[in-house]
Amino acid sequence: MKLADMDKSQLQAMKADLEKQYGEFKARGLKLNMARGKPSSAQLDLSMGLLHALDDCPLKDADGTDVRNYGGLNGIPEARALFGEIFGVPADQVIMGGSASLNLMYDTISRAFLHGVLPGSTPWSKVEGIKFLCPAPGYDRHFSICKSFDIEMIPVPLKEDGPDMDMIEKLLAADDTIKGIWCVPMYSNPDGITYSDAVVKRFANLKPAAKDFRIFWDNAYCLHHLYPDNPDHLANIYDACKAAGNEDMVYMFASTSKITFAGSGISAMAASPANIEFTSKQLNIQTISYDKVNQLRHCKFLPTKAAIEAHMAKHADILRPKFQMVVETLEKEIAPLGVAHWHNPKGGYFVSFYGMDGTAKRTVELCKEGGVVLTGAGATYPYGNDPHDSNIRIAPSLPPVEELKQAMELFCIAVKLASVEQLLAK
Amino acid sequence: MKLADMDKSQLQAMKADLEKQYGEFKARGLKLNMARGKPSSAQLDLSMGLLHALDDCPLKDADGTDVRNYGGLNGIPEARALFGEIFGVPADQVIMGGSASLNLMYDTISRAFLHGVLPGSTPWSKVEGIKFLCPAPGYDRHFSICKSFDIEMIPVPLKEDGPDMDMIEKLLAADDTIKGIWCVPMYSNPDGITYSDAVVKRFANLKPAAKDFRIFWDNAYCLHHLYPDNPDHLANIYDACKAAGNEDMVYMFASTSKITFAGSGISAMAASPANIEFTSKQLNIQTISYDKVNQLRHCKFLPTKAAIEAHMAKHADILRPKFQMVVETLEKEIAPLGVAHWHNPKGGYFVSFYGMDGTAKRTVELCKEGGVVLTGAGATYPYGNDPHDSNIRIAPSLPPVEELKQAMELFCIAVKLASVEQLLAK
Repeated sequence: MKLADMDKSQLQAMKADLEKQYGEFKARGLKLNMARGKPSSAQLDLSMGLLHALDDCPLKDADGTDVRNYGGLNGIPEARALFGEIFGVPADQVIMGGSASLNLMYDTISRAFLHGVLPGSTPWSKVEGIKFLCPAPGYDRHFSICKSFDIEMIPVPLKEDGPDMDMIEKLLAADDTIKGIWCVPMYSNPDGITYSDAVVKRFANLKPAAKDFRIFWDNAYCLHHLYPDNPDHLANIYDACKAAGNEDMVYMFASTSKITFAGSGISAMAASPANIEFTSKQLNIQTISYDKVNQLRHCKFLPTKAAIEAHMAKHADILRPKFQMVVETLEKEIAPLGVAHWHNPKGGYFVSFYGMDGTAKRTVELCKEGGVVLTGAGATYPYGNDPHDSNIRIAPSLPPVEELKQAMELFCIAVKLASVEQLLAK
Repeated sequence: MKLADMDKSQLQAMKADLEKQYGEFKARGLKLNMARGKPSSAQLDLSMGLLHALDDCPLKDADGTDVRNYGGLNGIPEARALFGEIFGVPADQVIMGGSASLNLMYDTISRAFLHGVLPGSTPWSKVEGIKFLCPAPGYDRHFSICKSFDIEMIPVPLKEDGPDMDMIEKLLAADDTIKGIWCVPMYSNPDGITYSDAVVKRFANLKPAAKDFRIFWDNAYCLHHLYPDNPDHLANIYDACKAAGNEDMVYMFASTSKITFAGSGISAMAASPANIEFTSKQLNIQTISYDKVNQLRHCKFLPTKAAIEAHMAKHADILRPKFQMVVETLEKEIAPLGVAHWHNPKGGYFVSFYGMDGTAKRTVELCKEGGVVLTGAGATYPYGNDPHDSNIRIAPSLPPVEELKQAMELFCIAVKLASVEQLLAK
């Protein structure tokens, strides 16, 4: 029965029953943290071969350079080639980073503040009131970077095939202080949607008033399919930008964080030759080089995109049952109430749940008190401000299925209780 | 015979002879790069055990955290403890970085520009005409960072026991736009001198006009003795600062770059609790975490300062003959001419050579044309400007002794030729 069809006494009876269930659950003393999209131990175990990938292997890169020594600022040739294959760009348009692509993104913005985006362009630090477009819900860490640079964030609604392009085109044409946009174009965080070819094409053909506007294309989940035989498809943004005469407009990022070891993988950025040249010149001031031994270790363990795809299919086998369980539980427990919706993602790390307006914070609070820490309500929006207080990011990857089952049991009780409370308060 | 005692005809005869020697040497077609202080293959081989340090070892840190996964922004406890021992500070005053301590230094300045050095302090980007004191000769990469941030560099002469403290005290008391100083306090780059206890104490007791003045204490060679039984001694700057009520005034940096693998070691910074708290808060925006697997790998391979010292003695056995050969060659070939001096360092990576004023560029040029690339003359000074055109940084670590011998042969010919040319041109 839909909650909307219940009268007050039915809602009150339901509330009493839910409070009883909630109390019983709380007594179990569960302690579970689902705040971040962390891979599980079983997933990390898939990459233990990494630790022996360099056994009996000369520690030289494809150019014959000793990877143990200094040098190789932009990365070893085979790592650049591998990520070139992943990004769909030539190897010399790739710069390898350290263990976190987030660091590459932060540094890219930092460099733009200090020196502008290309030789001769104005440093962003010299421009008053810089803004970024933020498709929302999105990745909280992107928003934190903006906040730390005092960049004003303009939320842009995310539709089923990508951000609202009408709005983006209009805003960008009118305002030359909008310098960037954050995109997680494939299996987006948290909604799990993938930008359509039409959306990618519109991105590539943007005509921003700011000549130094940049798309931050965070392709964190580009190989992270749950259904490897039926993956989403994402068009090559760089090819599209180039075709539109906009090749300098996009920075692309990716990493092996959710491919090998989350905390000790390798990351990469790709961009036009002009962007890469300018970036590399400044990188040469920032650091000596990133860890080339770890780059070689990864290239020996997973030498090609095809090898990574085969490896990712094993991740999918571990993750799929968890995602299915989450969605099935929601279908069974929540769908009949008619108060919420969610996307059933084909990849990525999250299920994005939309409850009744004004219930997300309460739901997360109830879960926390019941022993399950979720991503903070609102964290998926700029300034932590979900205007509907509706979205909750569910991260099913870390707990074993049995624990996840309990967590979802609590989550459903919390959603129902928060919804009933909300209806009764009206 | 001293060059100063020769008459013109003697100098001309010597020049003709040197030109002949130089021509003969050039014909050998030697190709050697001694521009950077890179460890040799033999030194890198000392750390091959690193690659198996994690065999049969649970991938958990001292807190039981899985090092493969996300988290642990400040580093694993055992790595922080190890570097705490090295710096002489508690483990919780250490933040672990990636493969290059230079990156930690760059980021520290970058954070100061964006947010100031402590809560409530003015971001350096809001201050006109920021300056740094630069003991010179010094490390060119420090100077490059200043240049990239448009920080004006004020050279400070380096004496035998450290920088000219009278000058530093006077400048700092008078000018609140001087925000920092670069120090390589032990086996300095390039001079190889170590700051005396008195100098360290005067540093700790500085009374800078700028409350947000910071000492960048780059302890790159803190364990890099050539004579492990008779090492230089460096006082603990943090203890001294604390005793002087100046505990927030110093940032300390170190790394394993010249201990294990130059390009894939681990780095660390240490500072007061207030500095570390402020830094860590911002680091949490910049990145997820540095490579904890590599931190654990290093802690298993070299678990204590004593283990590192034993390891460094093996480096010393490889490096010592090279340094001795360089200094002996200079003593034999150059000392009798009375035109140059140098320090015989007890550690570090360089022999710092001071030739006749106005001959360094010419000497480096002659070496280059003869097949040996040295660090560019002037590179050891801010803005690449050695006011005497006298200093040349000799980096003996990379070539095998036999090649180094040839390189020094050329170097001595070049020094003599440049000196004679200079005297004849007067």
